[in-house]
Amino acid sequence: MSNLIGYLDPDFLLILDEVSDLLKMVFQTEESLTLALSGTGSAGMEAGMTSLLEPDDTVVMCVYGFFCERMVEMAERVGANVVPLRAEWGRPFPTEMLENELKKHSRVKMVTAVHAETSTGLLQPLEDLSGLAREHDALFMVDAVTSLGGNEVAVDDWAIDYCYSATQKCLACPPGLSPVAISPRAREAIENRKKRPTSWYLDLGLIGNYWSDEHVYHHTAPVSMILALREGLRVVLEEGLEARYERHQRNAAALRAGLEALGMELVVPEEYRLAQITPVWIPEGLEDTPVRQTLLRDYGIEIGRGLGEFAGKVWRVGLMGESSKPEYILALLSALEEVLPRNGFEVAHGAGVGAASKALATT
Amino acid sequence: MSNLIGYLDPDFLLILDEVSDLLKMVFQTEESLTLALSGTGSAGMEAGMTSLLEPDDTVVMCVYGFFCERMVEMAERVGANVVPLRAEWGRPFPTEMLENELKKHSRVKMVTAVHAETSTGLLQPLEDLSGLAREHDALFMVDAVTSLGGNEVAVDDWAIDYCYSATQKCLACPPGLSPVAISPRAREAIENRKKRPTSWYLDLGLIGNYWSDEHVYHHTAPVSMILALREGLRVVLEEGLEARYERHQRNAAALRAGLEALGMELVVPEEYRLAQITPVWIPEGLEDTPVRQTLLRDYGIEIGRGLGEFAGKVWRVGLMGESSKPEYILALLSALEEVLPRNGFEVAHGAGVGAASKALATT
Repeated sequence: MSNLIGYLDPDFLLILDEVSDLLKMVFQTEESLTLALSGTGSAGMEAGMTSLLEPDDTVVMCVYGFFCERMVEMAERVGANVVPLRAEWGRPFPTEMLENELKKHSRVKMVTAVHAETSTGLLQPLEDLSGLAREHDALFMVDAVTSLGGNEVAVDDWAIDYCYSATQKCLACPPGLSPVAISPRAREAIENRKKRPTSWYLDLGLIGNYWSDEHVYHHTAPVSMILALREGLRVVLEEGLEARYERHQRNAAALRAGLEALGMELVVPEEYRLAQITPVWIPEGLEDTPVRQTLLRDYGIEIGRGLGEFAGKVWRVGLMGESSKPEYILALLSALEEVLPRNGFEVAHGAGVGAASKALATT
Repeated sequence: MSNLIGYLDPDFLLILDEVSDLLKMVFQTEESLTLALSGTGSAGMEAGMTSLLEPDDTVVMCVYGFFCERMVEMAERVGANVVPLRAEWGRPFPTEMLENELKKHSRVKMVTAVHAETSTGLLQPLEDLSGLAREHDALFMVDAVTSLGGNEVAVDDWAIDYCYSATQKCLACPPGLSPVAISPRAREAIENRKKRPTSWYLDLGLIGNYWSDEHVYHHTAPVSMILALREGLRVVLEEGLEARYERHQRNAAALRAGLEALGMELVVPEEYRLAQITPVWIPEGLEDTPVRQTLLRDYGIEIGRGLGEFAGKVWRVGLMGESSKPEYILALLSALEEVLPRNGFEVAHGAGVGAASKALATT
């Protein structure tokens, strides 16, 4: 058994710096402090809430899916004055809703949004929301859990003050870390807090001191996960960000063509579809769980169930990171061509695979 | 590249159950819910504070080292009424201090202690403290980060209501998870809270629902870390808990004999010495950092610096899990025999290695 390097070993601190630099490239930021939190994407979400909000701070939250709602719950627990703006799921958030709300407040500390809403398969445009937040001198916090590495996430250009992600989506690493980018404005807000955050473990001020040049001890870093992330980031950058984005788009287009050829209806309007997750309405007459169980048990294919208000109504097909490749698309479509008819939903045999193959051949 | 199993895959849920059962054996509990939190040992500490304490609950904290102080800071951040009882570092906590304090309060929600204080090398006896907590109807929370797997931790027999540990100490896994045991009384306290905990990520109620039979989704489990923990726990139980405890004791005795033969003075009185960490006072005339740096750079041996009030005053030699073996002890003593004289502290050449070898031969 070989020994693991220590989390305060000078050689490991060099690796921390390297991971931070690689994250800067993926987050497209030069200004922000980038690091990986010792927890999953939800830890990244909570670190932002606990570190950037103080009790009674007003936070205006754009809500259009399950993970938006999770943000609301966390902000409420922190004790902030939470203003959730709830809009239709699976549709882009209406900018004027935020515009109108911001006018009502003399001081808003933060505006939040989810970039890639995994529950609905929506890619939310961020620049207009960011512009409004900046206009009202509010911080702008973004959930990029499913987008980072699969879509452009331009932290500096889009003026995102706190952006968090996860390792197991488009970065294609094991789950367990949350890469984040913290802008100078956000760091200033953390420094100027009146009270310490209620969380010590996810206090971005303390964690920033470990990842910045001083490398002040906070907690034992999950060394092996960080080494895995370094390798994963190298693989991402070796493929190239642009090439990776295009691969996700190309494969998603083929999947959509195949699903539609099978008579399934996509949830999200074309312009706002996320490549990483494709939700379809479960066709009438088909049962949710039996189909998913058959796919997993007999074909080794896991598709996601609906979450929140989409529970029992949609299936969600994920293609992200390493899993975004043609053979998986064809395997799923071919399995559906067998499974759906057996469950009483007729499909033209070969139609899905044919349409997907054609889409792949023409791009 | 092979795919990672999903965190809601039925096969993975069986693995969760298995890890939970293995943890029951290591924590010596039948009654408690056992699981691994998605964070390091400090996450286990914070999960207990945020889930078991509500603002204005009184928590009486036995404080005799750096990690005890970290517990105080976390409890303060949660907004509890914190009563720290500060006693001398490196000495067992005086039971009467707790006894006298508890008498002053009509209602104490929780009493806390650290089992193996890594900053001072003290193994704190827990049964008297536990008895007092129970007598006053308070929960008893214990930090077993460094003891679990290296010392007996008898959760049921010692009536520990919340016990947390870490994977990278005596369980000899990579850092990143915090195994915990939650007693029925603690679970009841969580269920009867007036308000939700400020933390969502470390809410033991929600996390318990994922690890218990219902397996309700909370956050993406760090699958690969949990697989590593399962393997690590199997290795621990294959060696046998008793055999593992004895190995730690035997090797620590040899290290102590060697260090004393080199003229170093141990910090903790014999009866309370922790096998996993042996702190020595830095001999007068020697500088802290240069010696540690030479050991790391030239000999590949990392020894710990002093923390908190022991900073610059002690060195801490760790022997835990896989690292508790004779060859590491002899390598360190032999290195010290070369390095200390070069830094102006004379030692009899071969004295340390000789004393340690003799101790190993006679046990």
